Amino acid sequence: MSRDREDDDSPVAISVSRVEMTQLVLPGDTNSLGTAFGGRIMAWVDIAAGIAAGRHSAGPVVTASVDDLHFIRPIRQGDVVVLKAQVNLAGNSSMEIGVRVEGEKWGGERYHALTAYTTFVAVDENRRPRTTRKVLLESDEDHRRASEAAVRMAERRRRRQDRASRLDS
Amino acid sequence: MSRDREDDDSPVAISVSRVEMTQLVLPGDTNSLGTAFGGRIMAWVDIAAGIAAGRHSAGPVVTASVDDLHFIRPIRQGDVVVLKAQVNLAGNSSMEIGVRVEGEKWGGERYHALTAYTTFVAVDENRRPRTTRKVLLESDEDHRRASEAAVRMAERRRRRQDRASRLDS
Amino acid sequence: MSRDREDDDSPVAISVSRVEMTQLVLPGDTNSLGTAFGGRIMAWVDIAAGIAAGRHSAGPVVTASVDDLHFIRPIRQGDVVVLKAQVNLAGNSSMEIGVRVEGEKWGGERYHALTAYTTFVAVDENRRPRTTRKVLLESDEDHRRASEAAVRMAERRRRRQDRASRLDS
Amino acid sequence: MSRDREDDDSPVAISVSRVEMTQLVLPGDTNSLGTAFGGRIMAWVDIAAGIAAGRHSAGPVVTASVDDLHFIRPIRQGDVVVLKAQVNLAGNSSMEIGVRVEGEKWGGERYHALTAYTTFVAVDENRRPRTTRKVLLESDEDHRRASEAAVRMAERRRRRQDRASRLDS
Amino acid sequence: MSRDREDDDSPVAISVSRVEMTQLVLPGDTNSLGTAFGGRIMAWVDIAAGIAAGRHSAGPVVTASVDDLHFIRPIRQGDVVVLKAQVNLAGNSSMEIGVRVEGEKWGGERYHALTAYTTFVAVDENRRPRTTRKVLLESDEDHRRASEAAVRMAERRRRRQDRASRLDS
Amino acid sequence: MSRDREDDDSPVAISVSRVEMTQLVLPGDTNSLGTAFGGRIMAWVDIAAGIAAGRHSAGPVVTASVDDLHFIRPIRQGDVVVLKAQVNLAGNSSMEIGVRVEGEKWGGERYHALTAYTTFVAVDENRRPRTTRKVLLESDEDHRRASEAAVRMAERRRRRQDRASRLDS
Repeated sequence: MSRDREDDDSPVAISVSRVEMTQLVLPGDTNSLGTAFGGRIMAWVDIAAGIAAGRHSAGPVVTASVDDLHFIRPIRQGDVVVLKAQVNLAGNSSMEIGVRVEGEKWGGERYHALTAYTTFVAVDENRRPRTTRKVLLESDEDHRRASEAAVRMAERRRRRQDRASRLDS
Repeated sequence: MSRDREDDDSPVAISVSRVEMTQLVLPGDTNSLGTAFGGRIMAWVDIAAGIAAGRHSAGPVVTASVDDLHFIRPIRQGDVVVLKAQVNLAGNSSMEIGVRVEGEKWGGERYHALTAYTTFVAVDENRRPRTTRKVLLESDEDHRRASEAAVRMAERRRRRQDRASRLDS
Repeated sequence: MSRDREDDDSPVAISVSRVEMTQLVLPGDTNSLGTAFGGRIMAWVDIAAGIAAGRHSAGPVVTASVDDLHFIRPIRQGDVVVLKAQVNLAGNSSMEIGVRVEGEKWGGERYHALTAYTTFVAVDENRRPRTTRKVLLESDEDHRRASEAAVRMAERRRRRQDRASRLDS
Repeated sequence: MSRDREDDDSPVAISVSRVEMTQLVLPGDTNSLGTAFGGRIMAWVDIAAGIAAGRHSAGPVVTASVDDLHFIRPIRQGDVVVLKAQVNLAGNSSMEIGVRVEGEKWGGERYHALTAYTTFVAVDENRRPRTTRKVLLESDEDHRRASEAAVRMAERRRRRQDRASRLDS
Repeated sequence: MSRDREDDDSPVAISVSRVEMTQLVLPGDTNSLGTAFGGRIMAWVDIAAGIAAGRHSAGPVVTASVDDLHFIRPIRQGDVVVLKAQVNLAGNSSMEIGVRVEGEKWGGERYHALTAYTTFVAVDENRRPRTTRKVLLESDEDHRRASEAAVRMAERRRRRQDRASRLDS
Repeated sequence: MSRDREDDDSPVAISVSRVEMTQLVLPGDTNSLGTAFGGRIMAWVDIAAGIAAGRHSAGPVVTASVDDLHFIRPIRQGDVVVLKAQVNLAGNSSMEIGVRVEGEKWGGERYHALTAYTTFVAVDENRRPRTTRKVLLESDEDHRRASEAAVRMAERRRRRQDRASRLDS
């Protein structure tokens, strides 16, 4: 059954791609201030988002861009980290993935630590872009996220063209 | 509200401690056969189980033992790894945590890769055992797991006494 | 002499904060496509940018946000990675750092692999924001970068207020 | 000469497979209590045991299971870790490896930190089980270990059949 | 253009191979005394030197030896590490690389932390030595370094012959 | 009894400090040629030698220098690595440690992969040098190693004075 899905172009529900990743901040993950160092969290964000994109597109993906990644609160050593990632919108081969990261203390109290929007591209084994399926929007929340993502995707396209026209290489 | 829970001895539902951890098998996680190397998966199992035990007991925990950890099928490089951990039964300060690990291929097909039972002890900051709360058994499944865990806990106690009596140090 | 700089509010030339970091893509840094995995590069970007921000502000810094991080071309296993980071503009306690990443093949051929703009905040030992010095703009290039950074900083401030007003926590 | 051993079915003395692995607990190996974190030690146990199994069977092996892994005492940051692994008993393609882990303080004082029994399977390059050689039992100690291992191997077989009959996948 | 260089035997200026690598000492890089642990710095030295040798010889290289590696001052957690590597002299296929490591505190103060001389051999894809180009000596400093390196290379050759004659394997 | 040794100045037999460390070359330890990368082996050498020095001096040590580290043969992915370290000679607070590294293939065949001489200094908790005990020379082999080490230690002292006189900072 899961095989079938690969040959199938019908839109995919967000629940299919949703990822929950839990981590623990060990001393080897920290900076000199005793909190998770930024690059470690960014690496976890990239993996969680990449798994969501791989689930949605049923194949390999590569990171294309990261926007609006904001550290809202540091995560202290010993705290648990909960990352949630989901596909907000899919174009031909690119997908926007939203990631929300929470810290969790002993006793269960959670705090919002980071949000990020990342873009992945579905590729084949030679890293050439391949077509991916659309997102099936079910709830009002799904529609709100998708329309906000559409605005950001247009903005990214505009900036990419700007860069290209400035021959920025 | 979450604070309150720490001072509260009422039993804790299993949903409170349940952990889902998702990982990706990168080349740096593999052995020479191209699959996730055993020690890496065991480290993930230990972290997932430790988070479940920490959630149940609302404080620090240490690994006490691992039993019946079985590799059922290897997880190949590039596959996603989904670990699920939950507290099965809690004694005075020790807890049995069950962990189930699945591999996931492109397209969503999942396969059972590993199961393990681990025991953690709730400790204070000086690593002295502290009392933890009981598990609130709700479903038939909860009761089945708890009664199987009780058999294993008794067996572990028996073996620990055996070791002590042989002065095995 | 370098000590003196800490007590001094005069603007700091960009050459003071500029960072060059060189890395090599080993098998342990790769994904299943044989190229540097996104999260590893992002961690390197975070460290290079953080060093630039720490040099400019002569003290500890924390990552605040990442925008416009774009992967332009993948970096293959065995290639050298050259990261260049510099402070574009400094506000009261926050700084925008631009990072450019190049891949390098045997024989010296270089290719543009990634650009990113990251924001860091200068903090004291208790993670409270502290005042940092201004950037001394010397060349036309410096002025161009600073004025582009000012546009992005204003845009970030606007988005942060948007998020706050939506009570997004 | 070592080549010859591979084609030879005569039993192998335990001294051939015995492994001594020494490690140092650095800050990057610790948990928030300042001792070696459980998962790191389990990864070292897996590698030491795998080397012993590879030596005994003169070829690749995979981890099959871990039983009776007990943390007897935590190992503090800065302490030395000494792992000793040896094959206790070999079946057709599976082997039981005993691992004993000791901590060591400055001045040489050693303490028993962990014991574990792990099972490995000898495989060929396609991960299919291959036949391995028997253990040559020489000392009384060898015989004692082998007979205890035989009891545990029978118990594992029984539990594996239990699991299979419950269709636990 | 860079391609051409590979087919070209004309000597290569030192500026072509010079490497600057910047790192940050995070808690996961330290020993129990709160400073960068020796092995981590040695790994960074090896990578920086290997990149310099790879640039000079425009192809793969392997580490042959390390001499005169001296830790002059420890680098504390939180300090920046700046490694500079350059080719001093090239023989037929071997090259001597000098590496200088500095620590850097907040405020920019730098201190000399380590020097090392390492020898790399240019190899082809089957690890067989290949011919490399000569070093173009331009400044007085270049000549001084090369003549000192020549003395060390002769000394290494002598010691290697000593070892061989003692059949030390 | 081991406690007593710390307060005791009588010479220490080499067997007390001897270290055997066994490692396995996993894909994450390799370079692009499929063999253990130099920096990883050097980090293992540093840890093995540091443990030997810590055992001999019964307290903390820091790496002072590395000389005559020679890669004789590369170690391939999947091979076992056996490191043996021992104190050759001890001065007031410095010790020379010899390290020999062997690779091991399936079937037990071993090959000499690397030798190194490293110098460590015994320090107190504030990193100030502390006095260490002498080496008890028992066998002819012990005497041969010690007298060769004495030659190297004198040579290092001479070079250190050279560097100091050139104001090399």
